Amino acid sequence: MSAPAGADLLVRNIGRLLPMTGPPVESAALAIQNGLVSWYGPAADLPERHGDVSELDAEGACVVPGFVDAHTHLPWAGSRRRDLEERLAGVPYEAILARGGGIHSTVAATRAASFDELVALTTARARLMLANGTTTAEVKTGYGLTRDDELRLLDVVAAVAAGTALRVEPTYLGAHAVPPDRDRADYVAEVVATLPAAQARGARWCDAFCDRGAFTVGEARTVLAAARDAGLGTRLHADQLARIGATGLAAELGCASADHLDHLDAEGAQALAAAGVVAVLLPACTLTIGEPTWDAARHLRAAGATIALGTDCNPGTSWCESMPYVVQLACLAYGLPVAEAFRAATLGSAQALRRNDVGHLGVGARGDLAVLEAEHEADLVAHLGARPVRATVVGGVVTT
Amino acid sequence: MSAPAGADLLVRNIGRLLPMTGPPVESAALAIQNGLVSWYGPAADLPERHGDVSELDAEGACVVPGFVDAHTHLPWAGSRRRDLEERLAGVPYEAILARGGGIHSTVAATRAASFDELVALTTARARLMLANGTTTAEVKTGYGLTRDDELRLLDVVAAVAAGTALRVEPTYLGAHAVPPDRDRADYVAEVVATLPAAQARGARWCDAFCDRGAFTVGEARTVLAAARDAGLGTRLHADQLARIGATGLAAELGCASADHLDHLDAEGAQALAAAGVVAVLLPACTLTIGEPTWDAARHLRAAGATIALGTDCNPGTSWCESMPYVVQLACLAYGLPVAEAFRAATLGSAQALRRNDVGHLGVGARGDLAVLEAEHEADLVAHLGARPVRATVVGGVVTT
Repeated sequence: MSAPAGADLLVRNIGRLLPMTGPPVESAALAIQNGLVSWYGPAADLPERHGDVSELDAEGACVVPGFVDAHTHLPWAGSRRRDLEERLAGVPYEAILARGGGIHSTVAATRAASFDELVALTTARARLMLANGTTTAEVKTGYGLTRDDELRLLDVVAAVAAGTALRVEPTYLGAHAVPPDRDRADYVAEVVATLPAAQARGARWCDAFCDRGAFTVGEARTVLAAARDAGLGTRLHADQLARIGATGLAAELGCASADHLDHLDAEGAQALAAAGVVAVLLPACTLTIGEPTWDAARHLRAAGATIALGTDCNPGTSWCESMPYVVQLACLAYGLPVAEAFRAATLGSAQALRRNDVGHLGVGARGDLAVLEAEHEADLVAHLGARPVRATVVGGVVTT
Repeated sequence: MSAPAGADLLVRNIGRLLPMTGPPVESAALAIQNGLVSWYGPAADLPERHGDVSELDAEGACVVPGFVDAHTHLPWAGSRRRDLEERLAGVPYEAILARGGGIHSTVAATRAASFDELVALTTARARLMLANGTTTAEVKTGYGLTRDDELRLLDVVAAVAAGTALRVEPTYLGAHAVPPDRDRADYVAEVVATLPAAQARGARWCDAFCDRGAFTVGEARTVLAAARDAGLGTRLHADQLARIGATGLAAELGCASADHLDHLDAEGAQALAAAGVVAVLLPACTLTIGEPTWDAARHLRAAGATIALGTDCNPGTSWCESMPYVVQLACLAYGLPVAEAFRAATLGSAQALRRNDVGHLGVGARGDLAVLEAEHEADLVAHLGARPVRATVVGGVVTT
């Protein structure tokens, strides 16, 4: 179906509305015309209706802008179940890699899957995201790791965007890992050479995994500088496993975002803030990997950086389609105040994707919203393990 | 409806069965007669059927014993939303208490609610527990804090047990907090004097909150020794906020369980193990409160103690009806291996309640089970924010 271009919808009986462009409104209504927000305010001030507009009764629930998921690795095949079991049983990661586990098992399964299988698997994940209130998502390739396999994944992403209501921002992540059978410099050159084709197949962004055991700062600079010159936006996996200078590179290149940041320090946070790089936190990954510290949010708040949130949805280190789950962890584990976590998951993530038409409900914005299973956004944070979202609207169309 | 006494049910097409009394069985079936497990094994070995037995098709999913939630504070009214918002915004707990927040706001709201309101609120929570695969739960009073209000809560618990399929173990927790308007010694004496009436109103257990800012070791000993003498089983909130000697008291008294244990050290773990006191971990509370360490499970495993799990469902520090959420956190935050976490959430919690008829699917056990939304129990742990349970069976009756 793809994101609806423009329906009309009147959302009535909103107990509490968070437009994000202004303070919360209690007992509110919101009107969508041709898929865009045309009015919101206290229900008592609702202008006279015109014609047979569809209506959605929020039944007193809290309504927020559709969540924007700033970081996902959605197209994959295969399972990393055994990795998790072994890791929790104390098997070292090196041993898991040595028996063929880790990212390379996902690459093998993804390459082996048919196009239709990959579309079906990825579509199911996109539908789960919609059911959890996400209306826009960044979606990365990165489990192909050959020119052809990566381009095929961009086609999968395009098919999923066409087949669901989710608004998708496709990212080419050829620089996810160096395939074990490839020379590093040769592979980096292939990634760079693939950029024009990736852009032609729908990629709007280029990302690189710059970390210990992944790509060096020099390699990532080569890829992202070429991507920028080719007209792609840039973003960077940074400071997840170790501090090797990736945040400095993101600031140097003016990336739209630096993501993960589990090992961020105060200096790195200041560099991101000064360069206007949005910091994308991925707490479901941080929990899954078992990082010992949750300091990144504190450094970022102190530095005044813009914070965004993402699920990091992937099979190995963050199998999670739910932004509400991420918002909960952002509050409870990172210690973000409730209002800041919701802001990060909407406006902040939209800024990480350089979009101003989503992530808020100001007049003229996309008519994308989530009706929470709660009267107040703080109840979504507090109520663990409960269904978080009652209905999701994209472009004025109720999708779930 | 209350827990069904005895229906017949044949569960077919189980992809993977965890009976807990033996190793997992792949491609299994399970038969329930008169509410009790009468057979399980490989589907190929299923004996000839007799009569018109109801069937449940597990569609290849993983089936586990119904979860046993070893620790809940289920009957309450009111909201602690503002506490959470203030705490995350950096307001000190003392200031939250000073403006009337914290436990005493829940006590006030609970006392003010009608019996029917309390039954309705608590029933809704019990139904959420069932939908998340819990079939047996310990349920505490503790938001009444007068003789009459506490006894009324026991009546609420009895009404919820009668009105749902959940098997309930009622606990009298008059020693939850000293009401601000009461003399400590006088209140402890009232709790002791209330024990016979509590038992007559259905309490099978007595608990006390022994911690910094709550009851002292001496006060808790007075309450629990009297409870033991009155024929009630005993359990203890221990080492949650500080190490004041509560685990030693639990060992001394031979309590069935010591619960929370966020500040447990190696010595405390050894004391619990030596005394046969089951250690009940409550990771959703640990996450909500933001405790800095997740060391308890490591100490308990090293000591060879029996570990159980609970939601700690309560309005202020763990609003969670979902044992799958707790199992996930037990693995990802505490680092429990997957098999140990499922064992803790079933067999371990049953042992914390001194029951051998639930928490496993051996022949003769209650026919209580959960059909997971997963082919394998490790996928339930890995898949964050997803629906965890497809169907719950209590005594051979499909309840959700």
